[in-house]
Amino acid sequence: MPELAETAVDPANWTCPAPLRDQPVVVMGHGGGGALSAELMEQVFAPAYGNATLAALADSAVLELGGARLAFSTDSYVVRPLFFPGGSLGDLAVNGTVNDLAMSGARPAYLSAAFVLEEGVELSVVERIARAMGAAAETAGVTIATGDTKVVESGHGDGVYVTTAGVGLVPDGVDIRPQRARPGDAVIVSGPIGLHGVAIMSVREGLEFGVELASDTAPLADLVAAMLAVTPDIHVLRDPTRGGLAASLNEIARASGTGVRLRERAIPVPGAVANACGFLGLDPLYVANEGRLVAFVPPTEAEEVLAAMRAHPQGAGATLIGECVAEHPGMVVVATGLGGTRVVDLPLGEQLPRIC
Amino acid sequence: MPELAETAVDPANWTCPAPLRDQPVVVMGHGGGGALSAELMEQVFAPAYGNATLAALADSAVLELGGARLAFSTDSYVVRPLFFPGGSLGDLAVNGTVNDLAMSGARPAYLSAAFVLEEGVELSVVERIARAMGAAAETAGVTIATGDTKVVESGHGDGVYVTTAGVGLVPDGVDIRPQRARPGDAVIVSGPIGLHGVAIMSVREGLEFGVELASDTAPLADLVAAMLAVTPDIHVLRDPTRGGLAASLNEIARASGTGVRLRERAIPVPGAVANACGFLGLDPLYVANEGRLVAFVPPTEAEEVLAAMRAHPQGAGATLIGECVAEHPGMVVVATGLGGTRVVDLPLGEQLPRIC
Repeated sequence: MPELAETAVDPANWTCPAPLRDQPVVVMGHGGGGALSAELMEQVFAPAYGNATLAALADSAVLELGGARLAFSTDSYVVRPLFFPGGSLGDLAVNGTVNDLAMSGARPAYLSAAFVLEEGVELSVVERIARAMGAAAETAGVTIATGDTKVVESGHGDGVYVTTAGVGLVPDGVDIRPQRARPGDAVIVSGPIGLHGVAIMSVREGLEFGVELASDTAPLADLVAAMLAVTPDIHVLRDPTRGGLAASLNEIARASGTGVRLRERAIPVPGAVANACGFLGLDPLYVANEGRLVAFVPPTEAEEVLAAMRAHPQGAGATLIGECVAEHPGMVVVATGLGGTRVVDLPLGEQLPRIC
Repeated sequence: MPELAETAVDPANWTCPAPLRDQPVVVMGHGGGGALSAELMEQVFAPAYGNATLAALADSAVLELGGARLAFSTDSYVVRPLFFPGGSLGDLAVNGTVNDLAMSGARPAYLSAAFVLEEGVELSVVERIARAMGAAAETAGVTIATGDTKVVESGHGDGVYVTTAGVGLVPDGVDIRPQRARPGDAVIVSGPIGLHGVAIMSVREGLEFGVELASDTAPLADLVAAMLAVTPDIHVLRDPTRGGLAASLNEIARASGTGVRLRERAIPVPGAVANACGFLGLDPLYVANEGRLVAFVPPTEAEEVLAAMRAHPQGAGATLIGECVAEHPGMVVVATGLGGTRVVDLPLGEQLPRIC
């Protein structure tokens, strides 16, 4: 990797984008997985709930219960359209929660599924989504064990919202969380980025990019198990969904007080994603993925972990994209192909229409 | 209890109300906790998920994970208005899931909280709900450990929806589920019924009944622990929320293949609830409660359990209202004050506007 020209960035003069602290109402960005989401959690939810667990910003909480070490996570899924190339709301609702659990190193075991249906939605639509969830659960090796259904009046709601929660078991000796990133860690992404977000956007906006782009939605727990078989000492895992790779890496940098340096040319952006992003003026680093993970791995283990990932169907495109550094703590920079560097900020809200 | 005139009901000629099997769209009743909800679960969700756990119709699933016996449950909360006499959506979202866990005999431990917010909702409203959740969690002795927030465009959604899931630990030797009801069991309700539903309806509809009626929303896990301290052999617990006592008792009767006989005069209906229901043409047996439970207890233990309940603040109004019988399996009948009997059906959908 070429040496970064550190002079291009002056961390001392760099400040977080100022969120809309004084605005009195919810805006779309509060759900975008960026700075506004973080602010809502840090300033509203964490103080209200009186605990610091939430503020840890992990994809799932790791808890002790009855002598077992459990991962516990939840997400609501409000994606439009409900069905898209490569998957559906049902696939996302299962894979998303499975992946959040896996990012703690857990083996996902059980999911709950709560539906908020709008009066007048066709039952066949509900059934298609439920079947997609059942199939995705089977693929991921989890059981949907409990559920709930509420119906809201026509004109409220938006067809179908699904909220899943999940529990899984964290193996002994595994301690994966954003705070554990260390300077020197190899930063690895499990495959090409941007497919989910661009696929959703193309059907939402009726755009054609010459190639059919399909969502990458997939369960990642088995890939994580293959990585942990190499070493239990994986430091950080994250699935870069809302806010993309940029949001995930910024959150890790902030939580750990380290910096992240990426090599732009190493980041696997499929040509069709690059073209679509170029056309739309978007940066692929901010586009959501639903079947990818980013890992921070001790440098001594990086090569072997990378090999294990590439041997797994979900990690066939695994690539070393950069490293964790002591410089510019809390900041993510990318070394461009031209020898310069640029800062990759935490997005304020979201760059795209709702995608997960 | 007076002997029931069994001739008034002929189980052989009694059939389940015919749900709207051929309708192609979701109707409000699919979320009402009655026959339509059961049909949706049995005919759509359980087959799609490929498991029978859901079909067990319990308030929470009991699972083995890492050597621990866990209860796991979820509910979405879409109540309008968000704030009402006696509580708020936030109180319901915590107490409802705490209570679902407690109905397996579990000690609730951790909750997740997922918000679907509508763009344009005041942040102060979100904060009030979050604070209510934090306070309710503290009262119930649980930790909100993980969460999520999504924002939907203005005109979709309906202000604030909250979905909570929860995990708790089921003590050894405790096996509480609807299938365990046995002829002879005493049927006990923990206090006066109908307060939540009538309170919500009165503010929704702008009705005044002379007396301010407040929701009974409350956590019941501590009451359940007090009951289990008398005997671990409690057969069934249920919190009669949507569909009221009628839906809960019908579900228990069907799951266990027993009958239920109630004494109408014994059922604790507050005067104000009776008046409001009379005015509105409703039956208090179908009105939702959010801080009550119904218990099926072996006759030998009934008196002691009742005494323990009455010694607890949440069970001060505990009352023996009937018994489980071998006759008319799957059916709930009530002996009226005039010496007759009437069947208490499973409601088709809901009797009230959305209340939980």
